[in-house]
Amino acid sequence: NPHLDLMEEDILYHLDLGTKTHDLPAMFGDIKFVCVGGSPNRMRAFAQFMQRELGLAGAGGDVADICAGSDRYAMYRAGPVLSISHGMGIPSISIMLHELIKLLHHAKCRDVTIIRIGTSGGLGIEAGSVVITDTAVDSSFQPRFEQVVLGDVVVRSTQLDKDLAEELLACSRDIPDFPTLIGHTMCTYDFYEGQGRLDGALCSFSSEKKLEYLRRAYDAGVRNIEMESTAFAALCGLCGLKAAVVCVALLDRLEGDQIRASHEVLWEYQQRPQRLIAAFIRKRLG
Amino acid sequence: NPHLDLMEEDILYHLDLGTKTHDLPAMFGDIKFVCVGGSPNRMRAFAQFMQRELGLAGAGGDVADICAGSDRYAMYRAGPVLSISHGMGIPSISIMLHELIKLLHHAKCRDVTIIRIGTSGGLGIEAGSVVITDTAVDSSFQPRFEQVVLGDVVVRSTQLDKDLAEELLACSRDIPDFPTLIGHTMCTYDFYEGQGRLDGALCSFSSEKKLEYLRRAYDAGVRNIEMESTAFAALCGLCGLKAAVVCVALLDRLEGDQIRASHEVLWEYQQRPQRLIAAFIRKRLG
Repeated sequence: NPHLDLMEEDILYHLDLGTKTHDLPAMFGDIKFVCVGGSPNRMRAFAQFMQRELGLAGAGGDVADICAGSDRYAMYRAGPVLSISHGMGIPSISIMLHELIKLLHHAKCRDVTIIRIGTSGGLGIEAGSVVITDTAVDSSFQPRFEQVVLGDVVVRSTQLDKDLAEELLACSRDIPDFPTLIGHTMCTYDFYEGQGRLDGALCSFSSEKKLEYLRRAYDAGVRNIEMESTAFAALCGLCGLKAAVVCVALLDRLEGDQIRASHEVLWEYQQRPQRLIAAFIRKRLG
Repeated sequence: NPHLDLMEEDILYHLDLGTKTHDLPAMFGDIKFVCVGGSPNRMRAFAQFMQRELGLAGAGGDVADICAGSDRYAMYRAGPVLSISHGMGIPSISIMLHELIKLLHHAKCRDVTIIRIGTSGGLGIEAGSVVITDTAVDSSFQPRFEQVVLGDVVVRSTQLDKDLAEELLACSRDIPDFPTLIGHTMCTYDFYEGQGRLDGALCSFSSEKKLEYLRRAYDAGVRNIEMESTAFAALCGLCGLKAAVVCVALLDRLEGDQIRASHEVLWEYQQRPQRLIAAFIRKRLG
Protein backbone atom coordinates (compact mmCIF):
# COMPACT_ATOMS: atom_id res chain seq x y z
CA ASN A 1 0.00 0.00 0.00
CA PRO A 2 1.78 3.12 -1.26
CA HIS A 3 -0.34 5.41 0.96
CA LEU A 4 1.40 4.07 4.10
CA ASP A 5 4.72 5.67 3.14
CA LEU A 6 3.06 9.10 3.17
CA MET A 7 1.77 8.77 6.73
CA GLU A 8 3.74 10.43 9.48
CA GLU A 9 2.27 8.10 12.07
CA ASP A 10 0.32 4.83 11.81
CA ILE A 11 -2.06 4.07 14.65
CA LEU A 12 -2.98 0.37 14.75
CA TYR A 13 -6.23 1.28 16.50
CA HIS A 14 -7.67 -2.15 17.34
CA LEU A 15 -4.31 -3.43 18.62
CA ASP A 16 -3.66 -0.25 20.64
CA LEU A 17 -0.18 0.04 19.11
CA GLY A 18 1.35 2.74 16.92
CA THR A 19 4.52 3.74 15.11
CA LYS A 20 5.06 6.84 17.29
CA THR A 21 4.04 5.37 20.63
CA HIS A 22 5.85 2.00 20.29
CA ASP A 23 9.25 0.89 18.97
CA LEU A 24 7.79 -1.80 16.72
CA PRO A 25 11.15 -3.05 15.26
CA ALA A 26 12.51 -3.57 18.80
CA MET A 27 9.29 -5.21 20.00
CA PHE A 28 8.61 -7.46 17.01
CA GLY A 29 11.60 -7.44 14.60
CA ASP A 30 12.66 -11.01 15.49
CA ILE A 31 9.19 -12.60 15.06
CA LYS A 32 9.26 -15.59 12.67
CA PHE A 33 5.94 -17.33 13.39
CA VAL A 34 2.52 -15.81 13.92
CA CYS A 35 -0.28 -18.04 15.18
CA VAL A 36 -3.83 -16.73 15.21
CA GLY A 37 -7.06 -18.19 16.58
CA GLY A 38 -10.51 -17.02 17.60
CA SER A 39 -10.46 -17.21 21.38
CA PRO A 40 -8.23 -14.95 23.53
CA ASN A 41 -7.98 -17.56 26.32
CA ARG A 42 -6.89 -20.22 23.86
CA MET A 43 -4.24 -17.96 22.33
CA ARG A 44 -2.88 -17.09 25.80
CA ALA A 45 -2.72 -20.82 26.61
CA PHE A 46 -0.91 -21.40 23.30
CA ALA A 47 1.72 -18.75 24.13
CA GLN A 48 2.29 -20.37 27.54
CA PHE A 49 2.49 -23.80 25.91
CA MET A 50 5.06 -22.51 23.37
CA GLN A 51 7.15 -20.97 26.16
CA ARG A 52 7.40 -24.41 27.77
CA GLU A 53 7.96 -26.21 24.45
CA LEU A 54 10.79 -23.84 23.50
CA GLY A 55 12.29 -23.97 27.01
CA LEU A 56 12.15 -20.17 27.34
CA ALA A 57 13.01 -18.26 30.50
CA GLY A 58 9.84 -17.53 32.48
CA ALA A 59 8.06 -20.57 31.08
CA GLY A 60 5.24 -21.73 33.35
CA GLY A 61 4.48 -18.20 34.49
CA ASP A 62 1.95 -15.73 33.19
CA VAL A 63 2.27 -14.00 29.80
CA ALA A 64 1.49 -10.32 29.27
CA ASP A 65 -1.18 -9.19 26.80
CA ILE A 66 0.65 -6.84 24.41
CA CYS A 67 -2.72 -5.36 23.37
CA ALA A 68 -3.93 -4.89 26.96
CA GLY A 69 -5.02 -1.32 26.13
CA SER A 70 -7.73 -2.70 23.81
CA ASP A 71 -10.23 -5.49 24.45
CA ARG A 72 -10.75 -6.15 20.73
CA TYR A 73 -7.86 -8.61 20.43
CA ALA A 74 -5.30 -10.22 22.72
CA MET A 75 -1.63 -10.68 21.74
CA TYR A 76 1.11 -12.68 23.45
CA ARG A 77 4.60 -13.69 22.51
CA ALA A 78 6.84 -16.68 23.22
CA GLY A 79 10.31 -16.15 21.76
CA PRO A 80 9.98 -15.86 17.97
CA VAL A 81 6.29 -16.83 18.12
CA LEU A 82 3.46 -14.29 18.24
CA SER A 83 0.04 -15.58 19.36
CA ILE A 84 -2.99 -13.39 18.61
CA SER A 85 -6.76 -13.78 18.92
CA HIS A 86 -8.98 -12.68 16.04
CA GLY A 87 -12.54 -13.13 17.31
CA MET A 88 -15.15 -14.82 15.15
CA GLY A 89 -15.86 -14.31 11.47
CA ILE A 90 -14.29 -12.75 8.40
CA PRO A 91 -14.75 -9.05 9.34
CA SER A 92 -13.16 -9.61 12.75
CA ILE A 93 -10.11 -11.53 11.46
CA SER A 94 -9.75 -9.09 8.57
CA ILE A 95 -9.36 -6.03 10.85
CA MET A 96 -6.75 -7.89 12.89
CA LEU A 97 -4.84 -9.08 9.80
CA HIS A 98 -4.68 -5.59 8.26
CA GLU A 99 -3.16 -4.22 11.47
CA LEU A 100 -0.92 -7.25 12.06
CA ILE A 101 0.47 -7.14 8.52
CA LYS A 102 1.20 -3.42 8.92
CA LEU A 103 2.85 -4.20 12.27
CA LEU A 104 5.13 -6.82 10.62
CA HIS A 105 5.93 -4.26 7.88
CA HIS A 106 6.74 -1.46 10.33
CA ALA A 107 8.80 -3.89 12.45
CA LYS A 108 10.77 -4.97 9.34
CA CYS A 109 10.07 -8.67 9.98
CA ARG A 110 11.34 -11.11 7.33
CA ASP A 111 10.28 -14.65 6.33
CA VAL A 112 7.27 -14.84 8.61
CA THR A 113 5.06 -17.94 8.55
CA ILE A 114 1.46 -17.41 9.69
CA ILE A 115 -0.85 -20.18 10.82
CA ARG A 116 -4.48 -20.06 11.89
CA ILE A 117 -5.10 -22.66 14.61
CA GLY A 118 -8.83 -22.91 15.08
CA THR A 119 -11.92 -24.94 15.78
CA SER A 120 -14.39 -26.10 13.15
CA GLY A 121 -17.24 -28.45 12.34
CA GLY A 122 -16.06 -31.63 10.65
CA LEU A 123 -17.68 -33.18 7.58
CA GLY A 124 -17.62 -36.96 7.45
CA ILE A 125 -14.65 -37.13 9.82
CA GLU A 126 -14.37 -38.19 13.44
CA ALA A 127 -14.73 -35.50 16.13
CA GLY A 128 -11.26 -34.51 17.30
CA SER A 129 -9.67 -34.92 13.86
CA VAL A 130 -7.29 -32.17 12.77
CA VAL A 131 -7.71 -30.77 9.25
CA ILE A 132 -4.85 -29.03 7.42
CA THR A 133 -6.48 -26.89 4.72
CA ASP A 134 -5.22 -27.24 1.15
CA THR A 135 -7.81 -24.81 -0.26
CA ALA A 136 -10.28 -22.53 1.47
CA VAL A 137 -13.61 -22.44 -0.37
CA ASP A 138 -16.75 -20.34 -0.03
CA SER A 139 -20.33 -21.54 0.54
CA SER A 140 -20.55 -22.51 -3.16
CA PHE A 141 -17.38 -24.63 -2.75
CA GLN A 142 -15.36 -22.21 -4.93
CA PRO A 143 -11.75 -21.22 -4.03
CA ARG A 144 -12.47 -17.50 -3.94
CA PHE A 145 -13.00 -14.61 -1.56
CA GLU A 146 -15.25 -11.73 -2.54
CA GLN A 147 -14.01 -8.44 -1.11
CA VAL A 148 -16.13 -5.32 -1.45
CA VAL A 149 -13.93 -2.31 -2.34
CA LEU A 150 -15.71 1.05 -2.61
CA GLY A 151 -19.01 -0.75 -3.23
CA ASP A 152 -17.66 -3.07 -5.97
CA VAL A 153 -16.94 -6.79 -5.58
CA VAL A 154 -13.33 -7.87 -6.17
CA VAL A 155 -12.70 -11.63 -6.38
CA ARG A 156 -9.50 -12.91 -4.77
CA SER A 157 -7.72 -16.27 -4.74
CA THR A 158 -7.77 -18.33 -1.53
CA GLN A 159 -4.76 -20.51 -2.33
CA LEU A 160 -2.64 -21.46 0.68
CA ASP A 161 1.00 -22.54 0.70
CA LYS A 162 1.11 -26.17 -0.55
CA ASP A 163 4.64 -26.91 0.73
CA LEU A 164 3.74 -25.64 4.19
CA ALA A 165 0.63 -27.85 4.27
CA GLU A 166 2.74 -30.89 3.32
CA GLU A 167 5.38 -30.00 5.91
CA LEU A 168 2.65 -29.80 8.58
CA LEU A 169 1.21 -33.15 7.48
CA ALA A 170 4.70 -34.69 7.77
CA CYS A 171 4.97 -33.33 11.33
CA SER A 172 1.61 -34.88 12.20
CA ARG A 173 3.00 -38.36 11.52
CA ASP A 174 5.02 -38.06 14.74
CA ILE A 175 1.82 -37.44 16.75
CA PRO A 176 -0.03 -40.75 16.59
CA ASP A 177 -2.80 -40.14 19.14
CA PHE A 178 -5.16 -38.20 16.87
CA PRO A 179 -5.99 -38.32 13.13
CA THR A 180 -4.71 -35.50 10.89
CA LEU A 181 -5.71 -35.07 7.26
CA ILE A 182 -5.50 -32.59 4.39
CA GLY A 183 -8.75 -31.33 2.85
CA HIS A 184 -10.75 -28.35 1.66
CA THR A 185 -12.15 -26.02 4.32
CA MET A 186 -15.46 -24.24 3.72
CA CYS A 187 -15.72 -20.73 5.12
CA THR A 188 -19.13 -19.18 5.86
CA TYR A 189 -20.44 -15.83 7.11
CA ASP A 190 -22.80 -17.46 9.57
CA PHE A 191 -22.69 -20.33 12.05
CA TYR A 192 -26.38 -21.28 11.92
CA GLU A 193 -28.27 -20.84 8.62
CA GLY A 194 -25.04 -20.38 6.64
CA GLN A 195 -23.68 -23.74 7.81
CA GLY A 196 -27.02 -25.55 7.44
CA ARG A 197 -27.73 -25.85 11.15
CA LEU A 198 -31.29 -26.65 12.19
CA ASP A 199 -30.87 -25.22 15.70
CA GLY A 200 -30.59 -21.44 15.17
CA ALA A 201 -33.20 -18.86 16.13
CA LEU A 202 -34.37 -19.10 12.51
CA CYS A 203 -34.46 -22.13 10.24
CA SER A 204 -36.41 -22.34 6.99
CA PHE A 205 -35.14 -25.67 5.64
CA SER A 206 -35.63 -29.36 6.41
CA SER A 207 -33.19 -31.88 7.80
CA GLU A 208 -33.13 -33.54 4.36
CA LYS A 209 -32.16 -30.30 2.57
CA LYS A 210 -29.45 -29.69 5.14
CA LEU A 211 -27.91 -33.15 4.67
CA GLU A 212 -28.15 -32.83 0.90
CA TYR A 213 -26.13 -29.56 1.09
CA LEU A 214 -23.53 -30.97 3.48
CA ARG A 215 -23.11 -34.09 1.33
CA ARG A 216 -22.56 -31.90 -1.74
CA ALA A 217 -19.87 -30.07 0.22
CA TYR A 218 -18.28 -33.39 1.18
CA ASP A 219 -18.31 -34.54 -2.46
CA ALA A 220 -16.60 -31.26 -3.44
CA GLY A 221 -13.74 -32.19 -1.07
CA VAL A 222 -14.76 -30.16 1.99
CA ARG A 223 -13.72 -31.83 5.25
CA ASN A 224 -14.46 -29.03 7.70
CA ILE A 225 -16.37 -25.75 8.03
CA GLU A 226 -15.32 -22.58 9.80
CA MET A 227 -15.68 -18.81 9.44
CA GLU A 228 -12.32 -17.17 8.65
CA SER A 229 -10.20 -19.20 6.21
CA THR A 230 -11.05 -17.56 2.85
CA ALA A 231 -10.32 -14.01 4.05
CA PHE A 232 -7.20 -15.24 5.89
CA ALA A 233 -5.88 -17.04 2.77
CA ALA A 234 -6.68 -14.12 0.46
CA LEU A 235 -5.16 -11.36 2.58
CA CYS A 236 -2.02 -13.31 3.58
CA GLY A 237 -1.55 -14.45 -0.03
CA LEU A 238 -1.78 -10.92 -1.43
CA CYS A 239 0.68 -9.65 1.19
CA GLY A 240 3.23 -12.42 0.50
CA LEU A 241 2.95 -14.26 3.81
CA LYS A 242 3.26 -18.06 3.77
CA ALA A 243 0.04 -19.16 5.39
CA ALA A 244 -1.64 -22.33 6.66
CA VAL A 245 -4.94 -23.17 8.35
CA VAL A 246 -5.04 -26.01 10.89
CA CYS A 247 -8.36 -26.62 12.65
CA VAL A 248 -9.70 -29.36 14.89
CA ALA A 249 -13.23 -30.62 14.24
CA LEU A 250 -15.37 -30.37 17.38
CA LEU A 251 -18.09 -32.62 15.92
CA ASP A 252 -19.12 -34.33 12.68
CA ARG A 253 -21.81 -32.16 11.08
CA LEU A 254 -23.24 -35.18 9.23
CA GLU A 255 -24.23 -36.46 12.69
CA GLY A 256 -25.54 -33.30 14.37
CA ASP A 257 -25.49 -29.55 14.89
CA GLN A 258 -24.94 -28.98 18.61
CA ILE A 259 -21.52 -29.14 20.23
CA ARG A 260 -22.29 -31.59 23.05
CA ALA A 261 -18.85 -32.76 24.19
CA SER A 262 -17.78 -31.81 27.73
CA HIS A 263 -15.53 -28.82 28.42
CA GLU A 264 -12.70 -31.27 29.21
CA VAL A 265 -13.01 -33.14 25.90
CA LEU A 266 -13.30 -29.87 23.95
CA TRP A 267 -10.26 -28.47 25.73
CA GLU A 268 -8.20 -31.52 24.79
CA TYR A 269 -9.42 -31.27 21.16
CA GLN A 270 -8.33 -27.61 21.03
CA GLN A 271 -4.83 -28.57 22.16
CA ARG A 272 -4.34 -30.86 19.15
CA PRO A 273 -3.62 -28.15 16.53
CA GLN A 274 -1.41 -26.45 19.14
CA ARG A 275 0.63 -29.64 19.64
CA LEU A 276 1.03 -30.05 15.88
CA ILE A 277 2.16 -26.44 15.42
CA ALA A 278 4.56 -26.72 18.37
CA ALA A 279 6.17 -29.77 16.75
CA PHE A 280 6.43 -27.87 13.45
CA ILE A 281 8.01 -24.78 15.02
CA ARG A 282 10.48 -26.88 17.05
CA LYS A 283 11.50 -28.69 13.87
CA ARG A 284 11.88 -25.41 11.92
CA LEU A 285 14.01 -23.92 14.71
CA GLY A 286 16.19 -27.06 14.67
CA ASN B 1 -37.96 -22.27 14.15
CA PRO B 2 -40.09 -25.43 14.44
CA HIS B 3 -36.99 -27.65 14.89
CA LEU B 4 -36.36 -26.17 18.34
CA ASP B 5 -39.51 -27.76 19.81
CA LEU B 6 -38.17 -31.21 18.90
CA MET B 7 -34.92 -30.75 20.81
CA GLU B 8 -34.65 -32.26 24.25
CA GLU B 9 -31.89 -29.86 25.22
CA ASP B 10 -30.60 -26.65 23.64
CA ILE B 11 -26.97 -25.80 24.28
CA LEU B 12 -26.25 -22.11 23.62
CA TYR B 13 -22.63 -23.00 22.93
CA HIS B 14 -21.03 -19.56 22.52
CA LEU B 15 -22.82 -18.19 25.60
CA ASP B 16 -21.98 -21.26 27.70
CA LEU B 17 -25.64 -21.57 28.75
CA GLY B 18 -28.19 -24.33 28.15
CA THR B 19 -31.77 -25.37 28.82
CA LYS B 20 -30.75 -28.35 30.97
CA THR B 21 -27.86 -26.78 32.83
CA HIS B 22 -29.50 -23.41 33.57
CA ASP B 23 -32.98 -22.30 34.68
CA LEU B 24 -33.33 -19.72 31.92
CA PRO B 25 -36.87 -18.48 32.88
CA ALA B 26 -35.67 -17.81 36.45
CA MET B 27 -32.45 -16.17 35.26
CA PHE B 28 -33.87 -14.04 32.44
CA GLY B 29 -37.71 -14.11 32.50
CA ASP B 30 -38.01 -10.49 33.68
CA ILE B 31 -35.63 -8.97 31.10
CA LYS B 32 -37.26 -6.07 29.19
CA PHE B 33 -34.26 -4.36 27.57
CA VAL B 34 -31.26 -5.91 25.85
CA CYS B 35 -28.33 -3.67 24.94
CA VAL B 36 -25.56 -5.02 22.76
CA GLY B 37 -22.21 -3.57 21.71
CA GLY B 38 -18.88 -4.74 20.34
CA SER B 39 -16.53 -4.40 23.26
CA PRO B 40 -16.84 -6.53 26.44
CA ASN B 41 -15.29 -3.82 28.65
CA ARG B 42 -17.74 -1.24 27.33
CA MET B 43 -20.74 -3.51 27.94
CA ARG B 44 -19.56 -4.22 31.51
CA ALA B 45 -19.21 -0.47 32.08
CA PHE B 46 -22.72 0.00 30.68
CA ALA B 47 -24.19 -2.57 33.10
CA GLN B 48 -22.47 -0.81 36.02
CA PHE B 49 -23.72 2.55 34.75
CA MET B 50 -27.31 1.20 34.48
CA GLN B 51 -27.12 -0.20 38.03
CA ARG B 52 -26.33 3.31 39.28
CA GLU B 53 -28.89 4.98 36.99
CA LEU B 54 -31.65 2.62 38.18
CA GLY B 55 -30.58 2.90 41.84
CA LEU B 56 -30.20 -0.87 42.14
CA ALA B 57 -28.82 -2.64 45.20
CA GLY B 58 -25.12 -3.36 44.77
CA ALA B 59 -24.67 -0.41 42.41
CA GLY B 60 -21.08 0.82 42.32
CA GLY B 61 -19.70 -2.68 42.85
CA ASP B 62 -18.55 -5.24 40.34
CA VAL B 63 -20.93 -7.09 38.00
CA ALA B 64 -20.63 -10.80 37.24
CA ASP B 65 -20.10 -12.07 33.68
CA ILE B 66 -23.01 -14.49 33.09
CA CYS B 67 -21.05 -16.05 30.20
CA ALA B 68 -17.83 -16.39 32.23
CA GLY B 69 -17.47 -20.01 31.03
CA SER B 70 -16.88 -18.76 27.47
CA ASP B 71 -14.59 -15.99 26.25
CA ARG B 72 -16.55 -15.48 23.01
CA TYR B 73 -19.01 -12.98 24.53
CA ALA B 74 -19.54 -11.25 27.87
CA MET B 75 -23.01 -10.78 29.42
CA TYR B 76 -24.06 -8.68 32.42
CA ARG B 77 -27.38 -7.65 33.88
CA ALA B 78 -28.68 -4.60 35.73
CA GLY B 79 -32.29 -5.16 36.85
CA PRO B 80 -34.43 -5.60 33.70
CA VAL B 81 -31.50 -4.67 31.44
CA LEU B 82 -29.21 -7.24 29.84
CA SER B 83 -25.88 -5.96 28.47
CA ILE B 84 -24.00 -8.22 26.04
CA SER B 85 -20.90 -7.87 23.87
CA HIS B 86 -21.00 -9.12 20.28
CA GLY B 87 -17.46 -8.66 18.98
CA MET B 88 -16.83 -7.11 15.58
CA GLY B 89 -18.63 -7.77 12.31
CA ILE B 90 -21.77 -9.44 11.02
CA PRO B 91 -20.76 -13.07 11.59
CA SER B 92 -19.83 -12.37 15.21
CA ILE B 93 -23.03 -10.46 16.08
CA SER B 94 -25.10 -13.01 14.18
CA ILE B 95 -23.91 -15.97 16.30
CA MET B 96 -24.65 -13.99 19.47
CA LEU B 97 -28.11 -12.90 18.25
CA HIS B 98 -29.16 -16.43 17.31
CA GLU B 99 -28.27 -17.65 20.79
CA LEU B 100 -29.66 -14.57 22.55
CA ILE B 101 -33.00 -14.82 20.72
CA LYS B 102 -33.25 -18.50 21.65
CA LEU B 103 -32.39 -17.56 25.24
CA LEU B 104 -35.23 -14.98 25.33
CA HIS B 105 -37.56 -17.62 23.83
CA HIS B 106 -36.60 -20.32 26.34
CA ALA B 107 -36.87 -17.78 29.19
CA LYS B 108 -40.38 -16.80 28.00
CA CYS B 109 -39.48 -13.09 27.90
CA ARG B 110 -42.18 -10.74 26.57
CA ASP B 111 -42.06 -7.25 24.98
CA VAL B 112 -38.30 -7.02 24.82
CA THR B 113 -36.67 -3.95 23.25
CA ILE B 114 -33.16 -4.49 21.86
CA ILE B 115 -30.69 -1.71 21.14
CA ARG B 116 -27.21 -1.84 19.66
CA ILE B 117 -25.04 0.86 21.24
CA GLY B 118 -21.87 1.08 19.23
CA THR B 119 -19.07 3.08 17.73
CA SER B 120 -18.87 4.10 14.09
CA GLY B 121 -17.21 6.36 11.58
CA GLY B 122 -19.24 9.51 10.87
CA LEU B 123 -19.97 10.90 7.43
CA GLY B 124 -20.16 14.68 7.20
CA ILE B 125 -20.95 14.98 10.92
CA GLU B 126 -18.87 16.19 13.84
CA ALA B 127 -16.83 13.61 15.80
CA GLY B 128 -18.75 12.72 18.95
CA SER B 129 -22.16 13.01 17.29
CA VAL B 130 -24.67 10.26 18.08
CA VAL B 131 -26.56 8.72 15.14
CA ILE B 132 -29.90 6.94 15.63
CA THR B 133 -30.33 4.67 12.60
CA ASP B 134 -33.58 4.90 10.64
CA THR B 135 -32.46 2.39 8.01
CA ALA B 136 -29.43 0.15 7.85
CA VAL B 137 -28.02 -0.07 4.32
CA ASP B 138 -25.35 -2.20 2.66
CA SER B 139 -22.23 -1.03 0.78
CA SER B 140 -24.44 -0.20 -2.26
CA PHE B 141 -26.65 1.98 0.00
CA GLN B 142 -29.56 -0.50 -0.28
CA PRO B 143 -31.76 -1.41 2.72
CA ARG B 144 -31.10 -5.14 2.47
CA PHE B 145 -29.15 -7.93 4.09
CA GLU B 146 -27.99 -10.88 2.01
CA GLN B 147 -27.98 -14.08 4.04
CA VAL B 148 -26.52 -17.26 2.55
CA VAL B 149 -28.74 -20.26 3.38
CA LEU B 150 -27.50 -23.66 2.17
CA GLY B 151 -25.37 -21.92 -0.49
CA ASP B 152 -28.18 -19.69 -1.82
CA VAL B 153 -28.54 -15.95 -1.20
CA VAL B 154 -31.72 -14.86 0.60
CA VAL B 155 -32.39 -11.08 0.69
CA ARG B 156 -33.85 -9.70 3.92
CA SER B 157 -35.25 -6.33 4.94
CA THR B 158 -33.20 -4.15 7.30
CA GLN B 159 -36.07 -1.96 8.51
CA LEU B 160 -35.78 -0.86 12.14
CA ASP B 161 -38.60 0.28 14.43
CA LYS B 162 -39.54 3.86 13.40
CA ASP B 163 -41.44 4.70 16.61
CA LEU B 164 -38.54 3.54 18.74
CA ALA B 165 -36.11 5.72 16.74
CA GLU B 166 -38.40 8.75 17.23
CA GLU B 167 -38.76 8.00 20.94
CA LEU B 168 -34.97 7.86 21.26
CA LEU B 169 -34.60 11.15 19.37
CA ALA B 170 -37.12 12.74 21.75
CA CYS B 171 -35.04 11.52 24.73
CA SER B 172 -31.92 13.06 23.18
CA ARG B 173 -33.48 16.54 23.42
CA ASP B 174 -32.98 16.39 27.20
CA ILE B 175 -29.23 15.81 26.73
CA PRO B 176 -27.94 19.09 25.31
CA ASP B 177 -24.19 18.52 25.52
CA PHE B 178 -23.77 16.47 22.35
CA PRO B 179 -25.51 16.43 18.94
CA THR B 180 -27.88 13.55 18.15
CA LEU B 181 -29.43 12.95 14.72
CA ILE B 182 -31.37 10.36 12.74
CA GLY B 183 -29.85 9.01 9.53
CA HIS B 184 -29.01 5.96 7.47
CA THR B 185 -26.21 3.72 8.70
CA MET B 186 -24.01 1.87 6.22
CA CYS B 187 -22.86 -1.59 7.27
CA THR B 188 -19.75 -3.16 5.72
CA TYR B 189 -17.89 -6.47 5.98
CA ASP B 190 -14.54 -4.79 6.32
CA PHE B 191 -13.08 -1.82 8.18
CA TYR B 192 -10.32 -0.92 5.69
CA GLU B 193 -10.96 -1.53 1.96
CA GLY B 194 -14.71 -2.01 2.53
CA GLN B 195 -15.06 1.42 4.15
CA GLY B 196 -12.76 3.14 1.68
CA ARG B 197 -9.85 3.59 4.07
CA LEU B 198 -6.44 4.39 2.57
CA ASP B 199 -4.51 3.10 5.60
CA GLY B 200 -5.01 -0.69 5.51
CA ALA B 201 -2.34 -3.28 4.69
CA LEU B 202 -3.76 -3.19 1.15
CA CYS B 203 -5.19 -0.26 -0.77
CA SER B 204 -5.74 -0.19 -4.54
CA PHE B 205 -7.64 3.10 -4.90
CA SER B 206 -6.83 6.80 -4.76
CA SER B 207 -7.85 9.41 -2.23
CA GLU B 208 -10.12 10.93 -4.91
CA LYS B 209 -11.96 7.62 -5.54
CA LYS B 210 -12.40 7.17 -1.81
CA LEU B 211 -13.93 10.62 -1.33
CA GLU B 212 -16.15 10.16 -4.38
CA TYR B 213 -17.54 6.94 -2.81
CA LEU B 214 -18.04 8.47 0.63
CA ARG B 215 -19.79 11.51 -0.89
CA ARG B 216 -22.13 9.21 -2.82
CA ALA B 217 -22.92 7.50 0.48
CA TYR B 218 -23.58 10.87 2.12
CA ASP B 219 -25.88 11.87 -0.76
CA ALA B 220 -27.79 8.59 -0.29
CA GLY B 221 -28.50 9.64 3.31
CA VAL B 222 -25.73 7.72 5.09
CA ARG B 223 -24.49 9.53 8.20
CA ASN B 224 -22.32 6.82 9.75
CA ILE B 225 -20.59 3.53 8.89
CA GLU B 226 -20.23 0.43 11.06
CA MET B 227 -20.12 -3.34 10.70
CA GLU B 228 -23.19 -4.97 12.28
CA SER B 229 -26.40 -3.00 11.68
CA THR B 230 -27.87 -4.78 8.62
CA ALA B 231 -27.62 -8.27 10.15
CA PHE B 232 -28.88 -6.93 13.49
CA ALA B 233 -31.90 -5.24 11.86
CA ALA B 234 -32.72 -8.26 9.68
CA LEU B 235 -32.49 -10.91 12.40
CA CYS B 236 -34.30 -8.87 15.08
CA GLY B 237 -36.99 -7.87 12.57
CA LEU B 238 -37.66 -11.46 11.48
CA CYS B 239 -37.86 -12.59 15.11
CA GLY B 240 -40.31 -9.82 16.10
CA LEU B 241 -38.00 -7.85 18.39
CA LYS B 242 -38.33 -4.05 18.41
CA ALA B 243 -34.81 -2.93 17.56
CA ALA B 244 -32.77 0.27 17.34
CA VAL B 245 -29.16 1.12 16.51
CA VAL B 246 -27.51 4.07 18.30
CA CYS B 247 -23.83 4.70 17.52
CA VAL B 248 -21.43 7.49 18.28
CA ALA B 249 -19.14 8.68 15.48
CA LEU B 250 -15.46 8.53 16.55
CA LEU B 251 -14.33 10.68 13.60
CA ASP B 252 -15.62 12.25 10.38
CA ARG B 253 -14.52 9.98 7.53
CA LEU B 254 -14.65 12.90 5.08
CA GLU B 255 -11.71 14.30 7.06
CA GLY B 256 -9.60 11.19 7.64
CA ASP B 257 -9.24 7.46 8.23
CA GLN B 258 -7.29 7.05 11.46
CA ILE B 259 -8.90 7.32 14.88
CA ARG B 260 -6.56 9.86 16.46
CA ALA B 261 -8.49 11.13 19.47
CA SER B 262 -7.04 10.34 22.92
CA HIS B 263 -8.29 7.41 25.01
CA GLU B 264 -10.02 9.92 27.31
CA VAL B 265 -11.91 11.65 24.50
CA LEU B 266 -12.88 8.31 22.93
CA TRP B 267 -14.08 7.02 26.32
CA GLU B 268 -16.32 10.06 26.78
CA TYR B 269 -17.67 9.65 23.22
CA GLN B 270 -18.54 6.01 23.96
CA GLN B 271 -20.54 7.05 27.01
CA ARG B 272 -22.85 9.24 24.91
CA PRO B 273 -25.04 6.44 23.46
CA GLN B 274 -25.06 4.87 26.95
CA ARG B 275 -26.36 8.10 28.50
CA LEU B 276 -29.07 8.38 25.85
CA ILE B 277 -30.19 4.78 26.36
CA ALA B 278 -30.16 5.19 30.15
CA ALA B 279 -32.47 8.21 29.80
CA PHE B 280 -34.75 6.18 27.50
CA ILE B 281 -34.93 3.17 29.86
CA ARG B 282 -35.56 5.39 32.91
CA LYS B 283 -38.41 7.08 31.02
CA ARG B 284 -39.89 3.75 29.89
CA LEU B 285 -39.76 2.38 33.47
CA GLY B 286 -41.48 5.55 34.67
